[in-house]
Amino acid sequence: MIPRERLMETARRVYRRYGFVPIDTPALEYLEVLTGKGSDETDRQMYHFTDNGGRAVGMRFDLTVPLARFSAQHINELGTPFKRYHIGAVWRGETPQAGRFREFVQCDFDTIGTTGVVSDIETALVIHELLQEIGIERFKLRINNRQLLTGLLEALGLGNQATIVLRALDKIDKLGAKAVEKELSEAGILEPQIAQILQFASIRGNPDAVLEQLASQLRGNQRAEEGLDRLNVVQKALVAAGVPQERFAIDVSIARGLDYYTGIIFETMLGDLPEIGSVCSGGRYDNLAELFTKQHLPGIGASLGLDRLLAALEKLGKISAQAAPASVFIALFAAERTSDYFELAALVRRNGFSCEVYPDAKKLGAQLKYADQRGFPVALIAGSRELDAGMVQVKDLRNKTSTEVQWRSNPDEFIGALRTMLTMERGDLFA
Amino acid sequence: MIPRERLMETARRVYRRYGFVPIDTPALEYLEVLTGKGSDETDRQMYHFTDNGGRAVGMRFDLTVPLARFSAQHINELGTPFKRYHIGAVWRGETPQAGRFREFVQCDFDTIGTTGVVSDIETALVIHELLQEIGIERFKLRINNRQLLTGLLEALGLGNQATIVLRALDKIDKLGAKAVEKELSEAGILEPQIAQILQFASIRGNPDAVLEQLASQLRGNQRAEEGLDRLNVVQKALVAAGVPQERFAIDVSIARGLDYYTGIIFETMLGDLPEIGSVCSGGRYDNLAELFTKQHLPGIGASLGLDRLLAALEKLGKISAQAAPASVFIALFAAERTSDYFELAALVRRNGFSCEVYPDAKKLGAQLKYADQRGFPVALIAGSRELDAGMVQVKDLRNKTSTEVQWRSNPDEFIGALRTMLTMERGDLFA
Repeated sequence: MIPRERLMETARRVYRRYGFVPIDTPALEYLEVLTGKGSDETDRQMYHFTDNGGRAVGMRFDLTVPLARFSAQHINELGTPFKRYHIGAVWRGETPQAGRFREFVQCDFDTIGTTGVVSDIETALVIHELLQEIGIERFKLRINNRQLLTGLLEALGLGNQATIVLRALDKIDKLGAKAVEKELSEAGILEPQIAQILQFASIRGNPDAVLEQLASQLRGNQRAEEGLDRLNVVQKALVAAGVPQERFAIDVSIARGLDYYTGIIFETMLGDLPEIGSVCSGGRYDNLAELFTKQHLPGIGASLGLDRLLAALEKLGKISAQAAPASVFIALFAAERTSDYFELAALVRRNGFSCEVYPDAKKLGAQLKYADQRGFPVALIAGSRELDAGMVQVKDLRNKTSTEVQWRSNPDEFIGALRTMLTMERGDLFA
Repeated sequence: MIPRERLMETARRVYRRYGFVPIDTPALEYLEVLTGKGSDETDRQMYHFTDNGGRAVGMRFDLTVPLARFSAQHINELGTPFKRYHIGAVWRGETPQAGRFREFVQCDFDTIGTTGVVSDIETALVIHELLQEIGIERFKLRINNRQLLTGLLEALGLGNQATIVLRALDKIDKLGAKAVEKELSEAGILEPQIAQILQFASIRGNPDAVLEQLASQLRGNQRAEEGLDRLNVVQKALVAAGVPQERFAIDVSIARGLDYYTGIIFETMLGDLPEIGSVCSGGRYDNLAELFTKQHLPGIGASLGLDRLLAALEKLGKISAQAAPASVFIALFAAERTSDYFELAALVRRNGFSCEVYPDAKKLGAQLKYADQRGFPVALIAGSRELDAGMVQVKDLRNKTSTEVQWRSNPDEFIGALRTMLTMERGDLFA
């Protein structure tokens, strides 16, 4: 829970830095709000019941349906653009697996009520900053625009076979071009069409090169050119905002969210753990709340895969095993001197360090064992004689060195000694 | 949600500073875990159903029962003292009223597995620091110890009438001593006993004076003296830790949690809004999880009344009406210069300010109206010509003053101007 909370705090901080506001909606929604809004699977997995007032209610299975309901109800008071983030639990009654539970936390952000490319850029920047601030060094934001393929397929007369083509292309990384070719051929798509699709899907390289190749293949196709223009603007803005070139790619092979997304789409792969898949994904959609309101609400959003990312951070050794959130442990050596220990603790806390006083006057060995198990880096030890003299022993619990200092008459020296020990201690974000 | 989130963040920060660790438990527990653990009322109000796997489950109605279940299951791995905080939603199917909803958030912290007075003190200090850090200036932590009255009643031969006496004393503030005297008399308690009880309950004054009077009335009563000793230690430690005298009182009239608490008890009243009742309450209990385990788990805890406190902060004018969490608004004046705006935005964010770029190239008036409504304090405005010259207009949206600065060639001057405007802006914690 400690790294989990830190992760959520990082997400909130980054979301706010970009002007997103928090919302919360109830865990329970009227059943009719939830039913038929996801897939047959989410309907089947939903927890639902009749409450004491005879109302049919269900527990939300994602945060998008509540956002749609909330926006449909309140968009006139809220005004657009409405930029919200929502971090909350959702429930699905499926069989639990490693890393997948019936209750899990989603971590979404969305911009509702605008089609402007600015929100495409902001979404990309938020994803980049999230990963960066979490402390991941090697990752790549893969960006595509659904309009490119849609335009190409329309030009090839395959506009109504988009889903078949997307499904096939989605496997190109795993199965290779030959398998995709076979699948498309079996779906009745002709050889020259397949060649064009595969040529399109094979475009790789740095963003500038990819955009150039796409421009030459898609020239004259209005829808695709529109999509390409937006990708060009996004690419330039990311560079202007200081996103390193190696952190993003234009990748026409990503096909995320088959029917839902209509414009730009995002996936984020970890450089050291590509096999876990995308840890932050999203894209632009045409109409968020069409099932709840006649008002047209275009938008764009993405979702941080909190549990997947935690699993990854653990694998990458970015999560320390610390079990206590506090830094300084104060042993209760002389129970009759409780006030002195709390005076000392107040001094420590006033200087920005967290600390706890052990609650029972057990043997020092037992107390230090507890401190060690909880991962406290530093212990303060003082008996009656030391307290009388205003002294305390500052003990580094890892390398077992210690130093005795005057805390009452020379608090600055004491805090300095503490700071030195604790600065050496805490390396990464989750320590 | 903005002040609500800030409040929860403050609570987490303070809890951690004292070495409490976060836990989370599922919203759903097996029905048998929840049933019969609260009152008849909580049983009746509980949301429960049978899931797809045929299991009877219920939604938690507080965070104490899940803590008891969790501790019973895991205390051997966790070790004691186990100090946890838990901020989470709970559900009760009651009729909603002003400030009371069917879903609400509880904000608990507890220390399990110790009877040491150190944890009494830490609990009091956490409550004090919570309120202080939230930005409340005038409040009073009222402290009592259940053992005092228990001891007195035992000495008077009224040990088995504790509940009757507690119920009556609980009304002394509202109805006065006469009414309590009448109620006790009707319950068959004799006049000299009533006199002693009322004398006890009428003791008031500064902590030292109260403790002295109590000592003289309760002398020779072992249980009461034990309770008094602990209060003495707590009082001295609070002073040693720097808690101002006017922020706490020993108050034998508080009777919180009738049957549950067995030692020290806490209530926290706001100086400017005593009528809303205690905003943070708790106390020591003998055995947390007796219904789940044979292991004896004494503990102490308290709960911050998040919604009550939010209502209070609103009434006290401590919550600003800010609708956007960001500080700096960037108008999209020249859509073809999107990259420049994002370069500017990156500079702003890199210097620790939050900002957003308006997503559509609407008329400036419409954009500034949005910025104003959302409560942005500062707007940055630049057209093509200004961008060419590396200039931007920094506009204070409240007093409508503005200044033009060089952001590209002189970022320090620009950030300085921004800082000046924003420092004047943000006064209190929730701005």
